[in-house]
Amino acid sequence: MKILHTADWHLGKIVNNIYMTEDQAYILEQFMSIVKKEQPDVVIIAGDLYDRSIPPKQAVELLNQTLTKLINEINVPVLAITGNHDSPDRLDFGAKLFRRQNLYLETKLTKEYEPITIHDQWGPVHFHLIPYVEPAEVAYIFEDDSIKSHQQATEKLIEHIEKHYDMSERHVWVGHSFIAGGMESESEERLSMVGGTPYVDASLFDQFSYVALGHLHQAQQILRETVRYSGSILKYSFSEVNHHKSVTLIDLENKDECSVEKIPLVPRRDFEIVEGYFSELMEGEAANHRENYLHVRLLDEGTILDPMGKLRKVYPNILHLERAALSPHRQQESLEELKARQKLEPLDLFSAFYQEIKQDELPDKRKSMIESAIEDLRLKERGK
Amino acid sequence: MKILHTADWHLGKIVNNIYMTEDQAYILEQFMSIVKKEQPDVVIIAGDLYDRSIPPKQAVELLNQTLTKLINEINVPVLAITGNHDSPDRLDFGAKLFRRQNLYLETKLTKEYEPITIHDQWGPVHFHLIPYVEPAEVAYIFEDDSIKSHQQATEKLIEHIEKHYDMSERHVWVGHSFIAGGMESESEERLSMVGGTPYVDASLFDQFSYVALGHLHQAQQILRETVRYSGSILKYSFSEVNHHKSVTLIDLENKDECSVEKIPLVPRRDFEIVEGYFSELMEGEAANHRENYLHVRLLDEGTILDPMGKLRKVYPNILHLERAALSPHRQQESLEELKARQKLEPLDLFSAFYQEIKQDELPDKRKSMIESAIEDLRLKERGK
Repeated sequence: MKILHTADWHLGKIVNNIYMTEDQAYILEQFMSIVKKEQPDVVIIAGDLYDRSIPPKQAVELLNQTLTKLINEINVPVLAITGNHDSPDRLDFGAKLFRRQNLYLETKLTKEYEPITIHDQWGPVHFHLIPYVEPAEVAYIFEDDSIKSHQQATEKLIEHIEKHYDMSERHVWVGHSFIAGGMESESEERLSMVGGTPYVDASLFDQFSYVALGHLHQAQQILRETVRYSGSILKYSFSEVNHHKSVTLIDLENKDECSVEKIPLVPRRDFEIVEGYFSELMEGEAANHRENYLHVRLLDEGTILDPMGKLRKVYPNILHLERAALSPHRQQESLEELKARQKLEPLDLFSAFYQEIKQDELPDKRKSMIESAIEDLRLKERGK
Repeated sequence: MKILHTADWHLGKIVNNIYMTEDQAYILEQFMSIVKKEQPDVVIIAGDLYDRSIPPKQAVELLNQTLTKLINEINVPVLAITGNHDSPDRLDFGAKLFRRQNLYLETKLTKEYEPITIHDQWGPVHFHLIPYVEPAEVAYIFEDDSIKSHQQATEKLIEHIEKHYDMSERHVWVGHSFIAGGMESESEERLSMVGGTPYVDASLFDQFSYVALGHLHQAQQILRETVRYSGSILKYSFSEVNHHKSVTLIDLENKDECSVEKIPLVPRRDFEIVEGYFSELMEGEAANHRENYLHVRLLDEGTILDPMGKLRKVYPNILHLERAALSPHRQQESLEELKARQKLEPLDLFSAFYQEIKQDELPDKRKSMIESAIEDLRLKERGK
């Protein structure tokens, strides 16, 4: 069975105030060509179809067009789940009607959970569509209050699957989670850490022939070749400049035989970091393509009149201009430091911010106010 | 052919800070029972499915459930259009996929316009699904800049239909507009009046066997029995207290023979205006049902401590409390005056407000600022 695996479309994404919708439409056209050429038996979209609960209407239109073409014109079954950025309630609209046309869009886990089974000449393949859910939701479904972490929730789900299905057949897990050992970038939102950690252990999936993951934006395998993130369809931050975006094509012949190929996606405009002196940059040769989305690091020390305005005449899509020489403590911050900072829980991040601004520690009373505000926000965001 | 005609569901509606979603779920259950009992050949929903462009998720869920049941369980074809409250782009999600399952949800007029044709033993019935559109959109589609008003837009559409289809067959117009002579209530939003008037002349529809309209909340016929508003499914303001909500069942035997029946909808809580002295009201007999949504007019003149708190112990769903004796100039305002005021264009309404507050006429410069702000808002609202 030929499976095309993609994830993290983030339709409606805004990067530095620029809507990515046109770039997304461009790359989805390319994606369609790949589907037409490769003729997979099924397309998997492993969550984060949209970038937020209430996406802009252009994003709704783009997803609508894309799914409609896949189903009506290309006639390929589509298996999709919601990720942590999607609104399960809003994406559920029409989901039951879509099923009759081979568009399976799973937004919620229920007690009536069942995989989608598709047959080929070697027998059935069972696709387990597991949308992003909070551990508490799994605890509720299985009436098991001991489930507190994503790890425990996944254990419970897999236990359930292994108990009810014949694991000597081919099973594919489609999920949206953070597998321990995965490489992060700047644009993934942290998953909830109620149970202390957002991570799930890759070894849980040993019984699955293929694990199609969404959430991390870099295409990668974890532990073995068949536990994979397809990665996002586009770069969504400058921390992703060195990624090579792609979709993953899997050929699943039998339970333990599975070939994997990455098919590159080439964006209309790449993300690129360029560094140099103003006069050099103005010559127009600094970027691979002048139209690329650029983070420009200016090395000049003196005053330059309206450098952004002038540089944009040469490179129209500069997203960020950094006066490297003028911001000494910022310029030194390495990606590692950035990552370390990014790993902080919101409360720790706020405490550090408070410390820096007030030159004093965050008092306990304020700390607990901030804590409950963060909790409220999380619940609200989740409930949208 | 048996046609069940409804409109103006306004899912997600908020009246005096109360979400109507539970009441809407209740009445849609009743609607479903009617569909099951009457077994129509087709269900028409003539616009304003939602109350606004971005409805709350509970409303999305309710519409999803309702349409899914109609299609998957009751197996009745559904013909729906968007009204002036709906977002065409957002409701278009999945629309092309739904068509294969006999859910026709028309959100946009295009040059490729075609009716939906359904056959019975007497031949075809052509349903013309005309979503709410601005006159400018019709002007664009037909490349005719002379189209400025809803009247002209409708004329053009009907001209197109009469030219391309055999009008000796049965044709049904499904539209969302304001037919001249219709009775308004407080809860309809004014349609755009770019061409000077929002009205469309009922005589335009002479060639149609039945005209299924949405927009006005009171069930009514205009000029002849077969040009009808089904009315909203619930009362959505106190100006509608005397309405009798219903759905309309039409039996269309041949081109000129059509029987019409109104099937009542009985709400969980009715809207009611009650008037009296505090002590009388507290006896609990003032309303038809204590649970009704009430507008209470208190006749007492003196001070009463927390009348709302006390009255709500008896009548839990008071939406509005009016101290009639204490607000002499408000109390005198009749429904006619209210309607007259409501008929003012936003600019005139603002001018009147300015006059009342500043005791001076709105200067021309400010007038034009307000004018362009109103225009901006309209465009934005439309584009959402």
